Amino acid sequence: MTTLPAGTPGQPLAVGLVGAGRMGSFHAESLAHRIPGARLAAVADPAPGAAQRLADRLGCPNALTDIGELLADPQIDAVVIATPARTHADLVEAAARAGKAVYCEKPMAVTLADADRAITAAHQAGVALQVGFNRRYDAGFRAAHEKVASGAIGTPQLLRSLTRDPKLADPAPIRPWTIFLETLIHDFDTLRYLNPGAEPVEVFAMADALVRPDFKDRGLLDTAVVTVRFDNGAIATAEANFQAVYGYDVRGEVFGSAGMLTMGDVRRTHLTSYGPDGIAAECVTYDQDLFHDAYVAELADFTTRVRTGTTPAVTGEDARAALSIALAAVQSITTNSPVLIDELKEQ
Amino acid sequence: MTTLPAGTPGQPLAVGLVGAGRMGSFHAESLAHRIPGARLAAVADPAPGAAQRLADRLGCPNALTDIGELLADPQIDAVVIATPARTHADLVEAAARAGKAVYCEKPMAVTLADADRAITAAHQAGVALQVGFNRRYDAGFRAAHEKVASGAIGTPQLLRSLTRDPKLADPAPIRPWTIFLETLIHDFDTLRYLNPGAEPVEVFAMADALVRPDFKDRGLLDTAVVTVRFDNGAIATAEANFQAVYGYDVRGEVFGSAGMLTMGDVRRTHLTSYGPDGIAAECVTYDQDLFHDAYVAELADFTTRVRTGTTPAVTGEDARAALSIALAAVQSITTNSPVLIDELKEQ
Amino acid sequence: MTTLPAGTPGQPLAVGLVGAGRMGSFHAESLAHRIPGARLAAVADPAPGAAQRLADRLGCPNALTDIGELLADPQIDAVVIATPARTHADLVEAAARAGKAVYCEKPMAVTLADADRAITAAHQAGVALQVGFNRRYDAGFRAAHEKVASGAIGTPQLLRSLTRDPKLADPAPIRPWTIFLETLIHDFDTLRYLNPGAEPVEVFAMADALVRPDFKDRGLLDTAVVTVRFDNGAIATAEANFQAVYGYDVRGEVFGSAGMLTMGDVRRTHLTSYGPDGIAAECVTYDQDLFHDAYVAELADFTTRVRTGTTPAVTGEDARAALSIALAAVQSITTNSPVLIDELKEQ
Amino acid sequence: MTTLPAGTPGQPLAVGLVGAGRMGSFHAESLAHRIPGARLAAVADPAPGAAQRLADRLGCPNALTDIGELLADPQIDAVVIATPARTHADLVEAAARAGKAVYCEKPMAVTLADADRAITAAHQAGVALQVGFNRRYDAGFRAAHEKVASGAIGTPQLLRSLTRDPKLADPAPIRPWTIFLETLIHDFDTLRYLNPGAEPVEVFAMADALVRPDFKDRGLLDTAVVTVRFDNGAIATAEANFQAVYGYDVRGEVFGSAGMLTMGDVRRTHLTSYGPDGIAAECVTYDQDLFHDAYVAELADFTTRVRTGTTPAVTGEDARAALSIALAAVQSITTNSPVLIDELKEQ
Repeated sequence: MTTLPAGTPGQPLAVGLVGAGRMGSFHAESLAHRIPGARLAAVADPAPGAAQRLADRLGCPNALTDIGELLADPQIDAVVIATPARTHADLVEAAARAGKAVYCEKPMAVTLADADRAITAAHQAGVALQVGFNRRYDAGFRAAHEKVASGAIGTPQLLRSLTRDPKLADPAPIRPWTIFLETLIHDFDTLRYLNPGAEPVEVFAMADALVRPDFKDRGLLDTAVVTVRFDNGAIATAEANFQAVYGYDVRGEVFGSAGMLTMGDVRRTHLTSYGPDGIAAECVTYDQDLFHDAYVAELADFTTRVRTGTTPAVTGEDARAALSIALAAVQSITTNSPVLIDELKEQ
Repeated sequence: MTTLPAGTPGQPLAVGLVGAGRMGSFHAESLAHRIPGARLAAVADPAPGAAQRLADRLGCPNALTDIGELLADPQIDAVVIATPARTHADLVEAAARAGKAVYCEKPMAVTLADADRAITAAHQAGVALQVGFNRRYDAGFRAAHEKVASGAIGTPQLLRSLTRDPKLADPAPIRPWTIFLETLIHDFDTLRYLNPGAEPVEVFAMADALVRPDFKDRGLLDTAVVTVRFDNGAIATAEANFQAVYGYDVRGEVFGSAGMLTMGDVRRTHLTSYGPDGIAAECVTYDQDLFHDAYVAELADFTTRVRTGTTPAVTGEDARAALSIALAAVQSITTNSPVLIDELKEQ
Repeated sequence: MTTLPAGTPGQPLAVGLVGAGRMGSFHAESLAHRIPGARLAAVADPAPGAAQRLADRLGCPNALTDIGELLADPQIDAVVIATPARTHADLVEAAARAGKAVYCEKPMAVTLADADRAITAAHQAGVALQVGFNRRYDAGFRAAHEKVASGAIGTPQLLRSLTRDPKLADPAPIRPWTIFLETLIHDFDTLRYLNPGAEPVEVFAMADALVRPDFKDRGLLDTAVVTVRFDNGAIATAEANFQAVYGYDVRGEVFGSAGMLTMGDVRRTHLTSYGPDGIAAECVTYDQDLFHDAYVAELADFTTRVRTGTTPAVTGEDARAALSIALAAVQSITTNSPVLIDELKEQ
Repeated sequence: MTTLPAGTPGQPLAVGLVGAGRMGSFHAESLAHRIPGARLAAVADPAPGAAQRLADRLGCPNALTDIGELLADPQIDAVVIATPARTHADLVEAAARAGKAVYCEKPMAVTLADADRAITAAHQAGVALQVGFNRRYDAGFRAAHEKVASGAIGTPQLLRSLTRDPKLADPAPIRPWTIFLETLIHDFDTLRYLNPGAEPVEVFAMADALVRPDFKDRGLLDTAVVTVRFDNGAIATAEANFQAVYGYDVRGEVFGSAGMLTMGDVRRTHLTSYGPDGIAAECVTYDQDLFHDAYVAELADFTTRVRTGTTPAVTGEDARAALSIALAAVQSITTNSPVLIDELKEQ
């Protein structure tokens, strides 16, 4: 699949940001300052004042509260969608129909029907659609992927990917399956990325509310372990927890017939301290520290690919595949049994 | 529970070794040279010449092919059982009935009925019974256990223990459930050790023959991931594979409400090399290198406890608890569903 | 000392680059794209075409072969000097006299008289003068400095700083004392940075041509160890070599009465590989990878300080102090004896 | 040079320990329990009760206060000398003349004349003489030596060896040059061991009393950096300090034309803790933990070599060579100038 080049030759890509929250603000800064081939052309956020404040800070001339207005602007070449998860698929569809190249934060959709709708819209419009699985742009995870793809560790047999957030986000907005649909979705994509060419076939999940047991009756799960069997035989584990007191912990491991790779490092810097209590080092706390370079790299790559008409490196189909594992995990929790991806019931 | 002190005060404990294979030979060397409080008083092995060769090498005056003869020897205070797994329970029972303190290699039994029989025999005879979960005597795993027990990482929420053997043992003697009953049994015990006071309640396993797919039809599994839910909510993963090309890999991780601990190091020494191809270090290949000190420490501790009448640190009940997880994993593989420990069906 | 704020309020600082070589090009890219508060207003390089090529690539409207023309341009607020070392002091003086804020690559000067001249010119003109000791902007070295300054390791007693370049640069342009004046100058500054408040009092150096013994008769030294005694008693070692086959190696260590800090990591990413030959990881090869973030941070900090009239964090006086150690090392090599900084003979 | 085999064939080597202090006690335990080929046949220490207490604890039948009596005992095959440093050479000479194989703790002598006298006595008696440079028996340092010897890192160009003791020993018994003659003597030997075939030619030392400045007027130095030039061009640094609050720190580094090796690890175990304050690990505090295996290995190797008449791996000549560097460092401190080993003045 290829897409038409977007933007005006010789001009930076005009990108509109949709969603001026924490992640959106970071992407806006990247578009404004860190990516030579792009410029922040507009910001839209329905929350009163949010778009304006961000636009003012970054010297962006165009702040909107009406997302539709941004999508309708013919000056905009591409959009970055950084709104709440459940709005993503609709926005991808609308942006694609408006002819914009689309970068969408994960998850691209929370049902398979929505995922299919978003993918189809992008295909029909011939626009690029890239999904924000930023770990694919982290130097360590990327090098691991390339080594596995090159056969350096033989056939993958055991994989592990984990995410431990630094602290439990305010539980109010967390919906019952957030841990699978919004957190572990990264790990499900990472497992596919570290097992290139293989696809998941069976999923089993165990989960619980251990960080905040008081929210368990509201269906809030904050600790989960998901086992995934792939069609090349590899057995993978994805693990998440919402409150790591030591920092933001993202690690991966691939064990194969000819070797093993490990990735991930919670250290903030290369400084190590030695004192009467032993050895000490500081941890990374915020994900924008840990993945700062990866966030910039993915948007830079999106920009380059959109301008040259090259298919994005992380597609809507990738988002759908990770979503399938997440939905199978949800179903596994509900039924307390392993779930075949092919027999996944749409919820 | 306490046991009567064994041995003659002022004399080293007279220990008889049963089983002169690889592990038995190492224990014999420890008894002969590394443990001041013990002496190697006899070696018995039904294989012609095996006991004699080992006894000669270590200057032990008493080599036997009849194990019963060793057990009947009133000069013997204690026995170390290092025979094939399926003979362990009978030998524990016989040794206990003969009034010997018993150190038994893992697994102590391969059915719950056998485990109960062995435990009962030791209790009735009032003899010490210690099981060879050597990782409990490794300095790193032990320090981790103590930190968890002291509350340093709060309540455990996620655990991991893995074993990857350096190479696939000759598959001929491997029986279908070896990976659970003889390999992962270590990890199941480690998970209990790292989650002190908690007990397993539910088990799910995925496994396959990925190292030697040609033996799959003989039921040989060489790769497995087991998920275990504990009664304190913690969710644990145990993972094994029979052929790690890089060496002998044993690691553990405990994540809790107040911190995380990691254990295990495959490095052979503290030497690191830097060259045109980057950074390099050598790995540990044989388990007797990796756990050399732990093997000696466990037998030294057994010796001390037996001589002083102190209950062993790793009991028959511990062996039974680990076996329960292993048998639940077997049942989970057979039924492809999670298994409650309380509803475990005896095979 | 404070300086007058430079630049036009509300406008990015207009920075002219002098010297379009490797380091200059990187700084130009930072000014063009990575530092919101600055813009690349002009590039000057006497080499035919060099300035033009760089300016074209970065969309800079003003490319010059006459450095004087750039310095005379009233639109230019500040200059970045990235020319060969021996031209630095003159250019700092000229730029200061032209009223420009000055960022100068290390070494700011190669004689104390030149250093004094440059410092005086900046003081008299009231312009900011910052020197390119980029390691002070590396997160690990900076955190170490702050810990030492806070008293976390007590009084420094032993220090170490080392630089090993990935490969011997073409020896033709290397002048006899390059290893001290251009390479170890970083380490001399680092030692001062890691021993805040202390000053060097005595220096002894050993050096040789081990990488290229054939150039020894031309006075080319490629391997050196310098011992420095500080006025707080600390004894420090600086070490350099021009050809590390494994990569670019920059490390530091401070040992004090209450602890130790180590800094520096040659690993390229957090990926570790395990295979039949053991454990492996890749090394950083180019200094712009290793210090990419530090190079950007120092120029961003310069920009901010210049715009707000804040004294630079790395001053001409710092450059002079590091130069004193370098010149003492040169004298120590020449006399094969320790040299007191206070009795340093100007060459 | 070869020596005659000592001891009675088929019997363990009968070893007499001279000096029942901390190090002697450890060696006695090794001889009693850890080394199959040796037995602890006698203990001698002039301090009232010291030999008896140690002998009683280890079941050794022969405790003496007269060292001469031990040396005169024809039942003794070999002696281990673990008395204060300044008595070593005389005891080596006396033991050699008595026909005993000799293992002598470092330093073997504190003057070159004494060293020569000890070496000559051993040669004339045809007895084995091994010196206690235990780092040569540490697995990491040994693997490094072998790699360098095999050419894996090309020609050594830069070396480092350091010793930081966990705490300042009671300063009363410390004599002025202890840091060179008793502490750094290890590092001087290590530098030779890591630069096989090369010999030191020039030495420069800086030292101070930073841990206990109040003892400086008594000539007590507790912090030192020594630079050594070798005849293959390599430049080496040896560094020592008497009070590392974090533990016992012994590390080495060899940088060569084809790579680098690093050795040494202060971690007590492979346990790492992660908590709100970051990452933590415990340090090794006592040298008998850090070098436990090395201490046993060196005595076991001595035993084997003595029994088979093989020349010891660490000879009196090695002790003399390390002593030469130490004495050159002393002279360098006294004269504040570099000292050529060949022009070393005997004190």
